[in-house]
Amino acid sequence: MDSQSTADEPMQQDIRLDVSRPLLPFDRLRRMGIDSGDEHVIYLHEDSSICRSEGFGAYSRVQICMGERRILARLNMVRGALLKPDEAGLSESAWRALAPRAGETAMFSHPATVESLSLVRAKIHGQVLRREDFEVIVRDIADRRYSMLELAAFVTACADNHLALEEVGALTGAMVSSGARVRWPHAMVVDKHCIGGLAGNRTTPILVAIVTSLGLIMPKTSSRAITSPAGTADTMEMLAPVDLSLQHMRETVERTGGCVAWGGSIGLSPVDDMMISIERALDIDGEGQLVASVLSKKIAAGSTHVLIDVPVGPTAKVRDHAEARSLADCLTRVAGDFGVHVRCLFTDGSQPVGRGVGPGLEAHDVLAVLQGLSSAPMDLRERAISLAAALLELSGAAGQGARAVAMATQALNSGAAWRQFQAICEAQGGMRVPGWAAHQYPFRSTHAGCVLSIDNRRLSRVAKLAGAPKSPLAGLMLHVRLGDRVDMDQPIFTVHAQTRGELAYAMEYVHRHPCIVTLADAP
Amino acid sequence: MDSQSTADEPMQQDIRLDVSRPLLPFDRLRRMGIDSGDEHVIYLHEDSSICRSEGFGAYSRVQICMGERRILARLNMVRGALLKPDEAGLSESAWRALAPRAGETAMFSHPATVESLSLVRAKIHGQVLRREDFEVIVRDIADRRYSMLELAAFVTACADNHLALEEVGALTGAMVSSGARVRWPHAMVVDKHCIGGLAGNRTTPILVAIVTSLGLIMPKTSSRAITSPAGTADTMEMLAPVDLSLQHMRETVERTGGCVAWGGSIGLSPVDDMMISIERALDIDGEGQLVASVLSKKIAAGSTHVLIDVPVGPTAKVRDHAEARSLADCLTRVAGDFGVHVRCLFTDGSQPVGRGVGPGLEAHDVLAVLQGLSSAPMDLRERAISLAAALLELSGAAGQGARAVAMATQALNSGAAWRQFQAICEAQGGMRVPGWAAHQYPFRSTHAGCVLSIDNRRLSRVAKLAGAPKSPLAGLMLHVRLGDRVDMDQPIFTVHAQTRGELAYAMEYVHRHPCIVTLADAP
Repeated sequence: MDSQSTADEPMQQDIRLDVSRPLLPFDRLRRMGIDSGDEHVIYLHEDSSICRSEGFGAYSRVQICMGERRILARLNMVRGALLKPDEAGLSESAWRALAPRAGETAMFSHPATVESLSLVRAKIHGQVLRREDFEVIVRDIADRRYSMLELAAFVTACADNHLALEEVGALTGAMVSSGARVRWPHAMVVDKHCIGGLAGNRTTPILVAIVTSLGLIMPKTSSRAITSPAGTADTMEMLAPVDLSLQHMRETVERTGGCVAWGGSIGLSPVDDMMISIERALDIDGEGQLVASVLSKKIAAGSTHVLIDVPVGPTAKVRDHAEARSLADCLTRVAGDFGVHVRCLFTDGSQPVGRGVGPGLEAHDVLAVLQGLSSAPMDLRERAISLAAALLELSGAAGQGARAVAMATQALNSGAAWRQFQAICEAQGGMRVPGWAAHQYPFRSTHAGCVLSIDNRRLSRVAKLAGAPKSPLAGLMLHVRLGDRVDMDQPIFTVHAQTRGELAYAMEYVHRHPCIVTLADAP
Repeated sequence: MDSQSTADEPMQQDIRLDVSRPLLPFDRLRRMGIDSGDEHVIYLHEDSSICRSEGFGAYSRVQICMGERRILARLNMVRGALLKPDEAGLSESAWRALAPRAGETAMFSHPATVESLSLVRAKIHGQVLRREDFEVIVRDIADRRYSMLELAAFVTACADNHLALEEVGALTGAMVSSGARVRWPHAMVVDKHCIGGLAGNRTTPILVAIVTSLGLIMPKTSSRAITSPAGTADTMEMLAPVDLSLQHMRETVERTGGCVAWGGSIGLSPVDDMMISIERALDIDGEGQLVASVLSKKIAAGSTHVLIDVPVGPTAKVRDHAEARSLADCLTRVAGDFGVHVRCLFTDGSQPVGRGVGPGLEAHDVLAVLQGLSSAPMDLRERAISLAAALLELSGAAGQGARAVAMATQALNSGAAWRQFQAICEAQGGMRVPGWAAHQYPFRSTHAGCVLSIDNRRLSRVAKLAGAPKSPLAGLMLHVRLGDRVDMDQPIFTVHAQTRGELAYAMEYVHRHPCIVTLADAP
């Protein structure tokens, strides 16, 4: 080995440069049939000339343009026969977003630098962002320029109480601007939101029926379940179609004054949905994010008067009254800046409301209350009446206190709310009635005693293990309430499932967690 | 529609419960050949009984056990023919980690709740964590219990200066404990780390040759490139094998006093690698994370005296001297708690060091300096000598200042360092010499002037677009340094690439970014 062994550097050549972005025709794109979750994924073979020419590596972000459409996707490299070197595969969400058409050509490139990430870094460093900062961040998120990791960093930087009040307002406004905005011809449009965390508690369909039977306008958009056993839209779907176009929703409201539709297809505050999915995955949120989330949806929906149900309880989302008051203060102040009237109602969050947990079982509860059946769960009826009364008060449609309660009660007792609900269901596409799951299995008390506590979170988990909301008739029926005396061997709740496997799996969880319903020894 | 239309609830049945976790035999597992990046992915058909019975949805985290091995993977649901309903597919990393064997059975379940995430949430809320908190967090990360999103939340919560000094020490110690730890029979083991950010600057192989020729023990482990055009391990691999087992590394050090090996196969501070990959993806880091990252690797490697090269310059990682001093202070204090002597050397970070950027081109520079060729880049030679002198001083093997510099210079001039380097390469498996890339193309100045600034980051980008480090001979040769007078049409740098496509792509970037090298008009 001596110094001669270093080869001489060859002479430079001046060659013709041919810069061409890699292209693929439509028939080289493959729909992989893989649901990759919230992030678009592109699959390229490791020998793909696209990877080589663009210098993409595993996990690179790739911009794909086709026609006027542009998506950003994360690269997964493929070896073997899954894909040919001259093909590109797309995940389900990427395929839907890019919507390739025959005759078109896909172009692949590095995405532009996302400048607004410097603002996220500033927020991480504790700076207070301005209104225009949130606007550019939210626009980039809406355009799916943020990776999931970058979104997680933004959500984390805004978590806890890291947002000042004016930042909450700025974030809310930016989120409203990121999506569609509905305008109604009515001077007053009422709405309702529940902060959540309680199993059951399906007051919305009843509430809409009551207040619209009394002349209020309430075009309610609701979500499907994300981590819970049922969303309002899932439950309502057991009774009528909810997947309405904006036009169909408008016609329904014109005919009946109200609706209970799924909000997903209307595209209100789409960034909110993306942030919620990260917040739930991380189980972190903050007051500021919650307020921006709730209000951006309501403002975008064109609501003028919004009642917010805040269940307070040890296993609810809001755990004590100090937290509830702080949240209510922030909600009303930020809403005021947008000209929206908000009232927060603190409700008992110590136990589920109603008996059913799961779309079909909750729908049975809703029907029983509306139909005035003697078997109807009285707590759900009472909760719906008090929320309706609060909304009537907020809207000025009734006086204070007793008169509003009387109006709401009368609407239920007279059958007016039930007729109104049937009219809404017909306008949404036709009323239907849910059946019952194939299998039921009771969980019985092992000793006599008094019901001391009910764990909302674990109860919801049982309903989900039984199959809710994907199996819409699955879930559970709760037979006891706090303070009830229970005999030994008495059914505490009954699990409903469509398959024996799911039933067994839910019951196994129940047996591993004996404190879902806690009994105090009888005196 | 009347109240009779609500079907009666059927009677509860008491059925036999058969709880069985879903299982799949070895021959139902498919290696998908998909590189999903840092997170394991499991692919299940949407009709899979595993999804149904366990209630998994898209993006669920799934625990898979096989033999004594257990991995956590993110679920991607598949429709169509990619996978059968009774099969489970695994991404490349998941397949390697689970290492399925014939005769074994895979069991699928929900992963246990990761309790340490509550500590991450406490950190987000601004709390100071204790030593045992970091230990449990880092252990869970090492066990891959954290999703990428959760890791991003932890990294974000620790970013900027959110870690107190004692927390940096606690995180460092926890990271050391998370992996292998090497112990050497020598009282003094020297090491070197560069904070990075400069193109080229491949001093390590030269430094190791100099100081081990003077009797120091320097078992150097280096990384491969993550986002740069070359890591030290990539460059050294052009000259000798670097993928050494710990045993091979020990034998090399025993024979020669030193080595330059790839650290990846030895498993030092594995959590550091996972956190670095998130930090780079987010382009966020903080002093505390940087210190824990550097020191955990050095402590785990058994080093006692560590020289840290801190290039300071506007486009280097550390941008000014205040930042450099704060970093040096944190590094020396935390290292002291672990009994490790650290010295930080602030170096000129205003321009690349050496001419080559890219594994093969940097290796040519290294060889030229070691062989004392007249063509050797003098800045690289000087930088290596001053680092070697600082390390000799730190170790006590030389007096202060001039004497240490003279010893290092003499080791190079006498050929001792070159002979020592050849011995190390032979011990690592045999010396070799890199060739040259197939295509070279010069970027010429469009006017005469004086070199005013060189953008390290963009220069690195050009080398990567040309194919480095995957094409190890690709990259660029820089022909000018700050202050040089340049004539019109004189080559500023030459891009080297193995394909004309990559060459064209890099040159296109160069033409779009004319400020990579800025010239002041000649006076």
